[in-house]
Amino acid sequence: MISRLWRILIGKPLATRRAKHERLSKLTALPIFASDALSSTAYATEEMFLVLWVAGTVGLAYSVPLAIALAALLFIVITSYRQTVYAYPEGGGAFLVARENLGEVWGLFAASTLQIGYVLTVAVSIAAGVAAIISAFPFFIDYRIQLCVLFIALVTLANLRGLRESGTLFAPPTYGFVLVMVLMIGVGLFRLATGSLEPADAPPMPGVDLQTVTLFLVLTAFVRGGAALTGTEAVANSVKAFRPPESRNAAITLAWMGIILGSLFIGITYAANKLGVAPGLNAEGHVVKTLTSELAFKVFGDTPFSFMYYVIQIATTLILVLAANTVYADFPRLSSILARNGYAPRQLANLGDRLVFTNGILLLGGIAALLVVLFRGDTHALIPLYAIGVFMSFTFSQLGMVRRFMRLKPPRWQIFALINAIGGVTTAAVFMINFVVNFRYGSWLVLLAAGGVVVVLYKIRSHYQNVREQLSVDNYQPEPIHNHKVLVLVPGVHRGVLEALDYARRIAQPEDIEALYINVDPQAPPIYRRVLKRIGKEEDPQLHLVTPATERMRDRWDTYVKDIPLKMVDSEYRSLIEPITEYVEQMVERDDIDRLTVVVPEFYPARWWQRLLHNQSAWMLRLVLKRYPKVAVTSVRYFLKR
Amino acid sequence: MISRLWRILIGKPLATRRAKHERLSKLTALPIFASDALSSTAYATEEMFLVLWVAGTVGLAYSVPLAIALAALLFIVITSYRQTVYAYPEGGGAFLVARENLGEVWGLFAASTLQIGYVLTVAVSIAAGVAAIISAFPFFIDYRIQLCVLFIALVTLANLRGLRESGTLFAPPTYGFVLVMVLMIGVGLFRLATGSLEPADAPPMPGVDLQTVTLFLVLTAFVRGGAALTGTEAVANSVKAFRPPESRNAAITLAWMGIILGSLFIGITYAANKLGVAPGLNAEGHVVKTLTSELAFKVFGDTPFSFMYYVIQIATTLILVLAANTVYADFPRLSSILARNGYAPRQLANLGDRLVFTNGILLLGGIAALLVVLFRGDTHALIPLYAIGVFMSFTFSQLGMVRRFMRLKPPRWQIFALINAIGGVTTAAVFMINFVVNFRYGSWLVLLAAGGVVVVLYKIRSHYQNVREQLSVDNYQPEPIHNHKVLVLVPGVHRGVLEALDYARRIAQPEDIEALYINVDPQAPPIYRRVLKRIGKEEDPQLHLVTPATERMRDRWDTYVKDIPLKMVDSEYRSLIEPITEYVEQMVERDDIDRLTVVVPEFYPARWWQRLLHNQSAWMLRLVLKRYPKVAVTSVRYFLKR
Repeated sequence: MISRLWRILIGKPLATRRAKHERLSKLTALPIFASDALSSTAYATEEMFLVLWVAGTVGLAYSVPLAIALAALLFIVITSYRQTVYAYPEGGGAFLVARENLGEVWGLFAASTLQIGYVLTVAVSIAAGVAAIISAFPFFIDYRIQLCVLFIALVTLANLRGLRESGTLFAPPTYGFVLVMVLMIGVGLFRLATGSLEPADAPPMPGVDLQTVTLFLVLTAFVRGGAALTGTEAVANSVKAFRPPESRNAAITLAWMGIILGSLFIGITYAANKLGVAPGLNAEGHVVKTLTSELAFKVFGDTPFSFMYYVIQIATTLILVLAANTVYADFPRLSSILARNGYAPRQLANLGDRLVFTNGILLLGGIAALLVVLFRGDTHALIPLYAIGVFMSFTFSQLGMVRRFMRLKPPRWQIFALINAIGGVTTAAVFMINFVVNFRYGSWLVLLAAGGVVVVLYKIRSHYQNVREQLSVDNYQPEPIHNHKVLVLVPGVHRGVLEALDYARRIAQPEDIEALYINVDPQAPPIYRRVLKRIGKEEDPQLHLVTPATERMRDRWDTYVKDIPLKMVDSEYRSLIEPITEYVEQMVERDDIDRLTVVVPEFYPARWWQRLLHNQSAWMLRLVLKRYPKVAVTSVRYFLKR
Repeated sequence: MISRLWRILIGKPLATRRAKHERLSKLTALPIFASDALSSTAYATEEMFLVLWVAGTVGLAYSVPLAIALAALLFIVITSYRQTVYAYPEGGGAFLVARENLGEVWGLFAASTLQIGYVLTVAVSIAAGVAAIISAFPFFIDYRIQLCVLFIALVTLANLRGLRESGTLFAPPTYGFVLVMVLMIGVGLFRLATGSLEPADAPPMPGVDLQTVTLFLVLTAFVRGGAALTGTEAVANSVKAFRPPESRNAAITLAWMGIILGSLFIGITYAANKLGVAPGLNAEGHVVKTLTSELAFKVFGDTPFSFMYYVIQIATTLILVLAANTVYADFPRLSSILARNGYAPRQLANLGDRLVFTNGILLLGGIAALLVVLFRGDTHALIPLYAIGVFMSFTFSQLGMVRRFMRLKPPRWQIFALINAIGGVTTAAVFMINFVVNFRYGSWLVLLAAGGVVVVLYKIRSHYQNVREQLSVDNYQPEPIHNHKVLVLVPGVHRGVLEALDYARRIAQPEDIEALYINVDPQAPPIYRRVLKRIGKEEDPQLHLVTPATERMRDRWDTYVKDIPLKMVDSEYRSLIEPITEYVEQMVERDDIDRLTVVVPEFYPARWWQRLLHNQSAWMLRLVLKRYPKVAVTSVRYFLKR
């Protein structure tokens, strides 16, 4: 029944041979790999504003230089990633690069930070997407969390169904988003220039008294704005998805992405500044109208093109959901790589019915949903955790590259190494700053989590190694089974039991078979006890066992079975399980038995509800008897017709 | 782990022989069997008031005559129950009486109404008990439902531990409650007489405009007040718990109970009238201060004995919880009787390890909790359903008695029959009225439920009969197993597998054994495909199977196993289950196989968390293979040391 539901939701299984890998042109690749990075422009500026705003317009003025600084940082990161792209035409994720050049531990560290980053990407992007909707349709404001969870569920489902990252899916929303953003910025600045919009100052931040600009404040704004750089590693991870010459095309795409991302980010920040817009906060100081939404409204709200406002909001939501969606390819892939290397549970390694890593997708969806609920769908609360993980993995891959150049020493390696060194050092620096200024916003938590994950990965690895050793067949001779005994559990004498006994006779000689009957109602009826009393044996336990129930059983046994000895045991506590396990334990301890098959006669009802009407002792028993090395449990079922 | 928790909560198992039955004196019996009935005085008057109040003081004035009328009804019911007590010294529950005299169907109907009544007793009593607490401690008002559930949980737990219905437990609260109630009434009337309290009129009902007294109104009040009679059947059910002469003692106790109950009920109603108190309602018109609480406050609030107010509230809560508790003996007992007669799932018949009907207790607790939640812990909403079930079972047992006298014709049977007839007719009449006036409050629901339960009971019965017939061994010869084949599922070649194969060799001849390997990664790697292409056989499915994986498997097999043939099957959809089941199906359909043992090698990790790191295919397989009649599934486990 459940499996049918699953089929309906997920669709028919796909044959392995249908796994195809389309090669992408630059134009189709860009939207696929850039959506994540570009989408971050939807919240990066806002994050800077929320920090600087406490210092009023003076503070907000810093946002433009900061945006430019971040664009420069972006340039550095991308230049060094271009080198990775050339160095690893097969695809150079931080994990691969770090492991190959810095060694196992750092590789795993990179992997775990990547994984954490992925999960946060989903959480942040979805939260931001929902924020965009709420800004346009305040009605949904009370359903923020529900909406987030709903979106995550939908994306998860889509990916379980095996949604392919096709250009057709990504191109329209991504290019659309870029287009409308450019439009917004352009029109905004044009109206400023033509004076149809007055340059204005942002209103003071509600509920906070004006503070002066401190270095700490600026640095905080800087690292928060660093969220704009998230997702830039996407291209490097999947170079081989490009049409040949793979590396070259990837590098070009990367450059284009950088240019678009940088200019959008600076553009939005500049326009927002000039037009004096600020995010709309509610009484608790939570963002209810995003900065981009306010900006879009300022630009188009009073024009005949006011519909553009809604277009922009929807485009924003779309690209953000897409951004989350890209992770649904990366996270499970990395998990499966880890699993193949024995670092993660095997279940994460196998492709599901639909040629996707089902378990990985479910895991990602689950954790992301949990995060969104914990942080009440608040982008602003998630960002501090987000950026830090990303910059960590940046650092790992850059330093990895440096080591690589120093190792392989290709022509002019010094320059290359230097470039990556610069990249690595800067990102490392940003990471440090991030860690410090965001400490009380949970940056320590991310580091802790990353460490924890690494430990777990190692534990898992060592377990799998142990298992392999223990199971290896080199110089191992199984001592053949000499004495195989069979114990048939008999609740009474009925067809099911006779079949079970017959089965037992088939797998062993009668003299090796024994039947066990548990009498769960040992208390002798009053009359009978009076008899015992009269003969003064009331306390004799042996006699006490022989109740009418057991006598009847004995008679039936002698009539219908004969050849197999029947043991009867009295259950003091009226439960089946304990006495049976006790009995089995005794048998297992005997040296003249090196394999015991416990045969459990079950009958299999015709309808499902009928199962509720029978004790589930069979599987309870199997559960308990599992613990005994020598024991093999076999259930012989008798099928009921009605 | 779970089982340990269970032990801690429930305590050590008790041996069957420790089941003891203490005989009760009248003085210890009264509190045990009367607590249920007496506790109903805590809400019966209020129920009348809530109906009559809409007609103002004029309406409320009717409550006294109604109380007297109900006392008369109580007298009738009790007189006819006294006859039951004499007729059934072994204990004459409605089920027994009705089945013996009116036949199976009516017996079952009585049983199901009784069961429904029991469940409602718990729900109503607990709700009323919580109401008493809330009246005294308004702080808890928002936790009404939680409190109800908590209480139910506690009572359930206590009974799972095997709480015995001892006089020591019941006497203090029950007698205490009677005492404080008498005190309250007494002091109240005394203060009235001495003029230290003025007779007053109740305030008009808030939020409703005054209505005139209609017959419908009076009748409704009457049947709602009928809640006072609930629980009077308790004594009759358990006559044999009394010291000899059982019947006589029971009859006397019954009479005493009637007298106390009647006078308390009339007393409270009268006092409440004279002092013009009415339940305190909140804005939504829900009772937040019970009538008895208001009365107690009026009587003691302004005296130096104001602490008595709290004493009364607590005493009320205690007796109500006790009342609920009594049902925890009745419901499971009746369930077990039904189960023994094959009308209810067997699980309800067996005594748990604390000598109580564990499943019955859990079932009762569960349903009661559900009801309380559904009705938001509102006594007033539950009452209409409550009384109707009770009066139904009254009727059944009375009419049963009539039939009995007409059948056995003891001396002066006409008189006895007449008495029961009167009892039966009156209760039947009350039931009818109840059904009509409470129709829109759900009385129809109770009737529907009662009918539904009867149907289910019958269905269950017929199922068990079917099973018995199908399993009976008379003139049945099991066709002996001629061809027993063994199929060993091999995920690879490791120690676990070798052990499993060894086991297979032990239970069958090598020629009857077959091994099956599922290749979940059938897609040949690129290089290999190129080879196939060169020899122009890329599309040959047979060849397509032979991937390096399978080749390696074949080699290892030939080195380590040899004697047993290995089949390799390719899993198109990368899942183990489907191809295995398909393969088994094919084997099962062969006529030359009449029993197939599927051996599943499992390894058993040393620690529980390690289990999460391995696919759970083994039990999945068992679950699926269950469906095939000829198949017996055996898991041979290899134990890991670390």
